[in-house]
Amino acid sequence: MKLAVVGTGLIGGAVARAARARGAADAIYGVEPNSEHAAMALEGGVVDEIVDSVPADADLIALCCPSDRVAEWAVALADHAGAVFDVGSVKAPIVGEVRSAMNGQFPARFVPSHPIAGSEKTGPAHAPLDLFSDRAVVLTPEPDTELDAVEAVRTFWKRLGGQVIQLDAHEHDRILAVTSHLPHYLAYAFMLQVSENDISLSGGGFSDFTRIAAANPEMWWRIFKMNRTALLDELSGFEANMAQLKKALEDDDDSLGMALLRKAASKRSKL
Amino acid sequence: MKLAVVGTGLIGGAVARAARARGAADAIYGVEPNSEHAAMALEGGVVDEIVDSVPADADLIALCCPSDRVAEWAVALADHAGAVFDVGSVKAPIVGEVRSAMNGQFPARFVPSHPIAGSEKTGPAHAPLDLFSDRAVVLTPEPDTELDAVEAVRTFWKRLGGQVIQLDAHEHDRILAVTSHLPHYLAYAFMLQVSENDISLSGGGFSDFTRIAAANPEMWWRIFKMNRTALLDELSGFEANMAQLKKALEDDDDSLGMALLRKAASKRSKL
Repeated sequence: MKLAVVGTGLIGGAVARAARARGAADAIYGVEPNSEHAAMALEGGVVDEIVDSVPADADLIALCCPSDRVAEWAVALADHAGAVFDVGSVKAPIVGEVRSAMNGQFPARFVPSHPIAGSEKTGPAHAPLDLFSDRAVVLTPEPDTELDAVEAVRTFWKRLGGQVIQLDAHEHDRILAVTSHLPHYLAYAFMLQVSENDISLSGGGFSDFTRIAAANPEMWWRIFKMNRTALLDELSGFEANMAQLKKALEDDDDSLGMALLRKAASKRSKL
Repeated sequence: MKLAVVGTGLIGGAVARAARARGAADAIYGVEPNSEHAAMALEGGVVDEIVDSVPADADLIALCCPSDRVAEWAVALADHAGAVFDVGSVKAPIVGEVRSAMNGQFPARFVPSHPIAGSEKTGPAHAPLDLFSDRAVVLTPEPDTELDAVEAVRTFWKRLGGQVIQLDAHEHDRILAVTSHLPHYLAYAFMLQVSENDISLSGGGFSDFTRIAAANPEMWWRIFKMNRTALLDELSGFEANMAQLKKALEDDDDSLGMALLRKAASKRSKL
């Protein structure tokens, strides 16, 4: 099994490392325009070889480049014999961009995918060894995706320890808007509100609550834009919940305030 | 050194455990109306003895009861020879309540204090062994607090590993409103927005961001109410930052959007 990883940053590096550690690939090619990341991935043994383009004999091709570059790679690899998947945080816009570039067609062997795992760090040097163990991995194949390509990608993620589920691309984007994109949005907005002096009086709660605000700003701004509609929808819902809690506080309404906090705490405690 | 702990829940239990482990107390009394907590604290060796009221020979008295019960204890102990301190998350309202009950006077040996450490769990069984190591502990003595009482409380927290600083009570409340109370408020409001089905597609970012929403709802509603003015002030500031980020997203303003995220990420990365 020959694996090609396009983009050997943190996620690409983690895909390569997990594939090697779990015997899911015999050889690993890396395609990486950032020469520093390329050298690190090669020297660290993350990949076996850095190549300029995806070799014809790759069985599986992991597109681990930024989300807004996935579509052009998927289109460029439309005739490749290997199964192709990406790791992007937003799915419907990628599908739409690919279809638009191919006049409504879709590459038969491209399986949009998203492992729900990551880090606020970047680069192959920070790629964890076993990032996908027991993590959900969502596949959003299109009706015209070939079943054996879906199976190849599903088998690969399962070998990396992932719990693979299949969803419609829009449903994926709606769910991730609230479970991932909105928390990042709120953590960034919250950090704008805190002065550096005040941070010295913060504890473990603050540290955990804000950890995701240290994530790559350029990457997250792209994700927010790609999933703008779903994110703004969830933001409206959040604003309504925030306003209800604010009203309880302003009106000194213990019954409503405690009911809201109890409901929230009860949901979180089940996690 | 005889220590009396009023309220042997999670924080009271942690104060007792750290005092014993670090040799800061020779004997530890517990005052605990909750018979289950009292039995757990005694059987677990957290305290040496459960007593009905604070013994006259206690050198140091830690008020670890809920924030809205601190004032009545401080007033009741106004003539006790020991130094008294609390651990409440809000300081100015406690000071105000005490003064109001004492016609403007303040107990000479009461040192309002707040260790910036905690847990979303409750009860002495969950009390960590060394909760205060390297954590900030704020003292907010009043102008009429006796200096040797302040020194006794400062020395105690330092022996528990705390980094003690002294602040005006209102300044403490303003800072904690943004570093602790607002994050809890937002985490609760956010959890109201998430459906239990969607949580299955969440990762480590979600888990960290929402951890504090599992904290005790009754306790946190009390804290929100006690620090209502400062919390609502910080909430207004947060809403303005959130609106600015929303405008950047709606207007597709990459320059503003990325500038905001970079500013937020840069502040968080310094932590």
